[in-house]
Amino acid sequence: MNTAKKDTPVCLTGIKPTGTPHLGNYFSAILPAIKLSKLYRCYFFIANYHALNAAPNKEKLERETLEIAACWLACGLDPKEVLFYKQSDILEIFELMVILTSYTPKGLMNRSHAYKAKVQENAKLGRDADATVNMGLFNYPVLMAADILLFKADVVPIGHDQLQHLEVTNDIAQAFNNATQSTLLTLPRPLLSKNTETIKGIDGRKMSKSYGNTIPIFQSKAKLRQAVMSIVTTSQTVAEPKDPDSCLIFSLYKLFSTAAEQGTLRKRYLEGGMGWGEAKEALLEKILSRFHKERMRYDEFIMNPDFLQKTLATGAKKAREHAALFMHELRSTLGIA
Amino acid sequence: MNTAKKDTPVCLTGIKPTGTPHLGNYFSAILPAIKLSKLYRCYFFIANYHALNAAPNKEKLERETLEIAACWLACGLDPKEVLFYKQSDILEIFELMVILTSYTPKGLMNRSHAYKAKVQENAKLGRDADATVNMGLFNYPVLMAADILLFKADVVPIGHDQLQHLEVTNDIAQAFNNATQSTLLTLPRPLLSKNTETIKGIDGRKMSKSYGNTIPIFQSKAKLRQAVMSIVTTSQTVAEPKDPDSCLIFSLYKLFSTAAEQGTLRKRYLEGGMGWGEAKEALLEKILSRFHKERMRYDEFIMNPDFLQKTLATGAKKAREHAALFMHELRSTLGIA
Repeated sequence: MNTAKKDTPVCLTGIKPTGTPHLGNYFSAILPAIKLSKLYRCYFFIANYHALNAAPNKEKLERETLEIAACWLACGLDPKEVLFYKQSDILEIFELMVILTSYTPKGLMNRSHAYKAKVQENAKLGRDADATVNMGLFNYPVLMAADILLFKADVVPIGHDQLQHLEVTNDIAQAFNNATQSTLLTLPRPLLSKNTETIKGIDGRKMSKSYGNTIPIFQSKAKLRQAVMSIVTTSQTVAEPKDPDSCLIFSLYKLFSTAAEQGTLRKRYLEGGMGWGEAKEALLEKILSRFHKERMRYDEFIMNPDFLQKTLATGAKKAREHAALFMHELRSTLGIA
Repeated sequence: MNTAKKDTPVCLTGIKPTGTPHLGNYFSAILPAIKLSKLYRCYFFIANYHALNAAPNKEKLERETLEIAACWLACGLDPKEVLFYKQSDILEIFELMVILTSYTPKGLMNRSHAYKAKVQENAKLGRDADATVNMGLFNYPVLMAADILLFKADVVPIGHDQLQHLEVTNDIAQAFNNATQSTLLTLPRPLLSKNTETIKGIDGRKMSKSYGNTIPIFQSKAKLRQAVMSIVTTSQTVAEPKDPDSCLIFSLYKLFSTAAEQGTLRKRYLEGGMGWGEAKEALLEKILSRFHKERMRYDEFIMNPDFLQKTLATGAKKAREHAALFMHELRSTLGIA
């Protein structure tokens, strides 16, 4: 970690290894986080135990963990500047979670959005309220609180959908501080993404692994091409003039191009004589050139899992030094020492 | 640990540090456990994070943790034969707990006796079902499963009241083994105490810290005398003959005396002319002589908290070696490595 930044606030973010990194991840999470790493002391971690709730198989979880590591490093995360680690390597997180459970009213979990969504789904299906709910899902907000509170995070970059979970973290921290008459736990503030633009997937809905509509930036050129070529379009003929402003291809193209380049493509749309294939090729070319360096680096990293594991292990070692100091203080406050 | 016993089954028991050790603890838990340590490879631990649920203050939890350690060592637990440690020192327990939550249906926790008792109490008081229920209480059976499963315990000595919790441990272990198609988790068997005799407290009810009716074996002679002298008796005069078989003092006296000694005291009861004070003195003398050596050792240990902490730390170090090996195997099965 850059020791020059010792007094700057702490920013923490967790990345769930569920699915291959895609364009949506890049613009909504990776790029903003890497910008934040210039402003904050950052803790970025791969939340592999959070992923366990969905019962992934061994190979999938292993592969996706390495993909996340390779992707973030390829996109410019500097492990000398940022503490980058796997959640599973910081045993103090789990200890802190167990401690926090004693200060977490069960009612707080009953009201968690993620849990309530499951209960509602079960009601619709006429099933028992807790059908298919496991304790990993139910405890999720407490584990998330431990992730955050262990490293005294000042800010946590989140989307609006995670706002409630961060409020729960605050509620738990306050309950602990009140009960122990201490100020040991730092109350984190949300850092809501200003970027209100949603990256759309190849079917026009929000790009998301769960919709299967992603453009995977680090897969082979063939797969990337396949995704781009599958972008949904109108059935207009080549000859017809087309509207760039309602076009999915054009909206993605804008993410990677200068105003001049956009003007040129816009003209091609409006004058007619351009098929969708041509627009898709233009987009593909832009994606490939924008991520050229990143794709090269990614390929290099992903071929070298030992390097990735070592990088994450080094991050974990440094993070645990901070964690151990903090837990020592926390334990003696509780009479656990 | 006695390496000669490497193939013998594993026995695990947790001791919650809540309250000063008393006669009831000695006969129902300490003495049977020390007997088991001759037959099994034993893991005995002080469950200090389980105690956190009741929100003890720092000094109380610290003191009671050391009292448990001093008491068990004074009563003959040999830390060379038994792995004796604090739960809080085995971080792998908490990691395993987090893993197990993903394999624990929430419905299993909804049906836990301890939780349901709270819900019923709340219903009686007209309160919200989950009032005063914290997540420590709700997760209790999962943490207990982690305590047990981490060390592949074959048997767990328990009372009938804990039978359901051990069934939950088995349910969780089976769910994990099924999901991972492995036999990694060992299903523990209950070792139900054959001793059906309940030690009665000074008010005639079961001796229990929660009734405030205990005879604390390791406190000062003055406090011990005070407890014995407070044993509830009839209002019979000194002159009246008394019935030993319905007498609380006599039932406690029997725990420490030979048949001949019991015969002598029985005679004193039946012939009259013996006041309750005399019977209580006879009992006190027996307790003091029975625990003479233990009380000496206890005083020595309790004056030396560094020795106690060091003994527990040594136990934890050895236990963690086993834990680390096992977790390595478990993690790679899950794709967490």
